[in-house]
Amino acid sequence: MKVSQLFTKTTKEVPRDEVSLNAQLLIRAGYINKLAPGVYSYLPMGLRVIQKIEKIVREEMNGIGGQEILMPALIPDANWKKTGRWEDLDVLFRVAGADRKHYGLGATHEEVLSPLVRQYVNSYKDLPLYIYQIQTKFRNELRAKAGLLRGREFIMKDLYSFHTDEDDLEKYYKKSQTAYMNVFKRVGLGQQTVLTFASGGTFSKYSHEFQTVTKFGEDTIFTCRKCSIAVNKEILSEIRNQCPECGNLKLNEDRAIEVGNIFKLGTKYSSPFGLNYVDKNGAEKPVIMGCYGLGISRLMGAVVETLHDANGIVWPKSLAPFQVYLIDLTKKQKAVKLAQSLIKNGIDVLVDDRVDASPGVKFSDADLLGFPYRAVISNKTGNKIEVKNRQTGKTQLKTEKQLIELAP
Amino acid sequence: MKVSQLFTKTTKEVPRDEVSLNAQLLIRAGYINKLAPGVYSYLPMGLRVIQKIEKIVREEMNGIGGQEILMPALIPDANWKKTGRWEDLDVLFRVAGADRKHYGLGATHEEVLSPLVRQYVNSYKDLPLYIYQIQTKFRNELRAKAGLLRGREFIMKDLYSFHTDEDDLEKYYKKSQTAYMNVFKRVGLGQQTVLTFASGGTFSKYSHEFQTVTKFGEDTIFTCRKCSIAVNKEILSEIRNQCPECGNLKLNEDRAIEVGNIFKLGTKYSSPFGLNYVDKNGAEKPVIMGCYGLGISRLMGAVVETLHDANGIVWPKSLAPFQVYLIDLTKKQKAVKLAQSLIKNGIDVLVDDRVDASPGVKFSDADLLGFPYRAVISNKTGNKIEVKNRQTGKTQLKTEKQLIELAP
Repeated sequence: MKVSQLFTKTTKEVPRDEVSLNAQLLIRAGYINKLAPGVYSYLPMGLRVIQKIEKIVREEMNGIGGQEILMPALIPDANWKKTGRWEDLDVLFRVAGADRKHYGLGATHEEVLSPLVRQYVNSYKDLPLYIYQIQTKFRNELRAKAGLLRGREFIMKDLYSFHTDEDDLEKYYKKSQTAYMNVFKRVGLGQQTVLTFASGGTFSKYSHEFQTVTKFGEDTIFTCRKCSIAVNKEILSEIRNQCPECGNLKLNEDRAIEVGNIFKLGTKYSSPFGLNYVDKNGAEKPVIMGCYGLGISRLMGAVVETLHDANGIVWPKSLAPFQVYLIDLTKKQKAVKLAQSLIKNGIDVLVDDRVDASPGVKFSDADLLGFPYRAVISNKTGNKIEVKNRQTGKTQLKTEKQLIELAP
Repeated sequence: MKVSQLFTKTTKEVPRDEVSLNAQLLIRAGYINKLAPGVYSYLPMGLRVIQKIEKIVREEMNGIGGQEILMPALIPDANWKKTGRWEDLDVLFRVAGADRKHYGLGATHEEVLSPLVRQYVNSYKDLPLYIYQIQTKFRNELRAKAGLLRGREFIMKDLYSFHTDEDDLEKYYKKSQTAYMNVFKRVGLGQQTVLTFASGGTFSKYSHEFQTVTKFGEDTIFTCRKCSIAVNKEILSEIRNQCPECGNLKLNEDRAIEVGNIFKLGTKYSSPFGLNYVDKNGAEKPVIMGCYGLGISRLMGAVVETLHDANGIVWPKSLAPFQVYLIDLTKKQKAVKLAQSLIKNGIDVLVDDRVDASPGVKFSDADLLGFPYRAVISNKTGNKIEVKNRQTGKTQLKTEKQLIELAP
C-alpha cells in the first residue's frame, strides 16, 4: 500500500481533552479518531491492529475449546431484573424503545447467555461448554480519560464456561490462565504481564486479573518476584501482605494496566435463569459457571502505553499493520519493485510515495507509526537498503534477500 | 467438526411471536437465537454464515477502492443536531449518559464520517475517497416482525464516497452498482435481484435499491423484463408507469426484499460539517458525497427467504457453514477417515456422530440445516458414498474422490 492511498495523515494536534498517552500517540499517527471521551473510530491502520489482536485471541480461545457466537447489545430490562443488575449495575446505559420496552446496553453478557444456554442444555452429557464472542460493549462511565484503556464503547472478548461441578470449572480456569498468557506473549506483553490475585466474590476466595506492569498504569499491584504473581490493592490487607502462593513478605509495588480478568461465577447467573442439568443419577442441579474477559481495544491501548519511546509507537511484529515502512530517496520505480518483491514474500509494506514531503518528515512519520522496520533506498546505499530496526534503533545495510528474511 | 461438539440443537419449537419464515427456519436449525423482537444472537453456525457474507462484501468493496474503518455506535447529540436528525430521525435510540451528555445510537454514520473526513481532507488532491465499515447498527422500530429482515439491532456494511464533483460521483455510483450485483451473484441471489429506481431526494432524480424478488417480500416493485430493472411503488406514478430506461409500459408487479440501497447525497452532509476542499484554482468548495448501504444480517435473512423448501434451508455453496453433512450408518471409524480426507482437501464437513439419534432424525436435520451435500456411508453402499445434492434433491453413489471434486 502507498501512503498517498491512505486517507489518514499524521498530525501534531490532539484534542485538548485527550490526556492519555495511548490515545495521543494513536491519534497523532492516524490509527484512531476521537468522537467523544471514551468513544473512538478505528481508522484503516488501527482496524488492522484490532483485527490482528482478534485473530490471536480467537486462536487461543478456539485452542481451549471455545465456540464463537455473537450476542446483541440491546438486552431487555427483564433479563437484567432477574439478576438485580437493572438497579445495581451503575455502568448500564438504559434505553427506552418505541415499543415502550426498556433495554440495557450490554456491558457484560451473563444475562443473555445463561437463558440462551438453558435452551440447549438438559443433561450432564451436554456439559462442559465454552462459549465466547468478540463484540462491542458499552459502559456508562462518569469519566473517560484513559483513551482506549477505559472506553464508554469498546471491543471485548468474553468467554463463559459451563460445568457440572467445581472441579471441572477449576481445571478449565487453570487452562484459561495459560491461554491468556499465550495471548499476552503473542502481543508483546509477555514479560510485563503478571497473574494477579483479586477478590473472589461469593463463590470463590479469589478471582484473577492479568496486569501489565507499566509506568503510567492506573492500577497499583504488589508483585512477588519469586512466584511471578501479584495481588491487587483490594485484597492486600486481607492476605496480610503475604504472597498467596509462597508466603513471601517482600512484595514490590508496581503501576499496572489490567488487560484481562477471570472469575468463578458459581451458580450466581445460572440459578436466576433456571439453568440446570440432570446428573448421572437423575437429579437436577444448577450449572456451575466461569467468565473470562479480555478487552481487545484496551489491549491495543495497553500495548501502546507499554511499547513506545519519545518518537512514537514501537509495535511488536505480531500487531504492526505493516512490517516495513519503505522510503525511496531516489527514483520511485526502485521502491515499487522492492515493495512488490516484499509483498510476494508475504511481507506487508507501506510505501511513502509522497512527493511533497521531505525526508525528515518521512523519517519522523516512520518512527511515529512504529512498524518493525524502516527501509530506505538512496543513492548513497547502492544496491543495498538501509534498514532501521524500530525497537533497537540500529541501522544496517541489507540486501533485498536479507530484508525479506528479517521481516516476516 | 462433530454434531456432538456443537452446543446448538435443532428444534421444532420457535418463539410464539416469531412469524417470519427466515427467523423460523434459522431458529429451528440453531443458526440464530431470539432475545427480543428484532434482536438476535448468532450461534456458531450462524456466525460462520455471517462471516462468509462479510468476506464477500469486503472483497467487493476493496475491489472498488474501499478503505475499511470501524466507527462507534454512541454518537453525541451535537453531531445529530447539526443535520437536524436529532429531532427528525424517528428510528434513533436516544440515550442519556452519566456525564449528562446525550447520544443517539448509530442508525447511519454520515454524522460521524463527515466531520472525521474533514480532519484529513484539504485539497482536491485528497479526493476521491471511498470509506466503509461493517458494523452493528440500531433502529428504534415500533414493530419488528420480519426476523433478520428488519432488526432493531443488525449488522450493516455502509460505504461513503467523497468527490470533487458530480461527474466523479456519477462514475463511482455506476461502479458501485456492478460491485453490488457481484455480491448478490456470489451469495446466490444474482438471478432474483434487480436494480430498482427509487426517489432520489434533493440532490438527484433517483436513488437505487437492490430488490430480491421472492414470494413473501415486504416490498412491491414493478419490473421491466426488457431491461431487467424495476421501479418501486413510491415513484410509480411519478414516472407514469413507464420503465425509466426504455419507456416500456408493461411492468410486472413483484414482491421483493430490499437487500441494498445507494444514494447520491450531494452536499447534504458535507455542508453542515464544513467538509470542503480547495480546487485547482484555489477556490473552496463543498465535497460531494454518496452513500452505499448493504445489510449483512438482512442479506442472510433474504437468502433464507429465497432459497429454501418445505424441509429447510438450501444454502448456496458460498455461504453454507459446512459443505458436507456426513452421516455414518455403519461404524464410526469410516466417517472419521472420510471427514479427515475431506478436511485435508479444504472441504468443511460436519459429522453427525450422535449415537442416540435415528437415521430419520439425522436425514431431516441434514435437510433443515441445508448444506450443499449430504453424504451417507452405509452397509448397502459398499465402498461408495451416497451423496444427496440439497438443491436438486438428487441422490447418487460417488467415490471419495468424486465427492472431493464436487464439494469445494
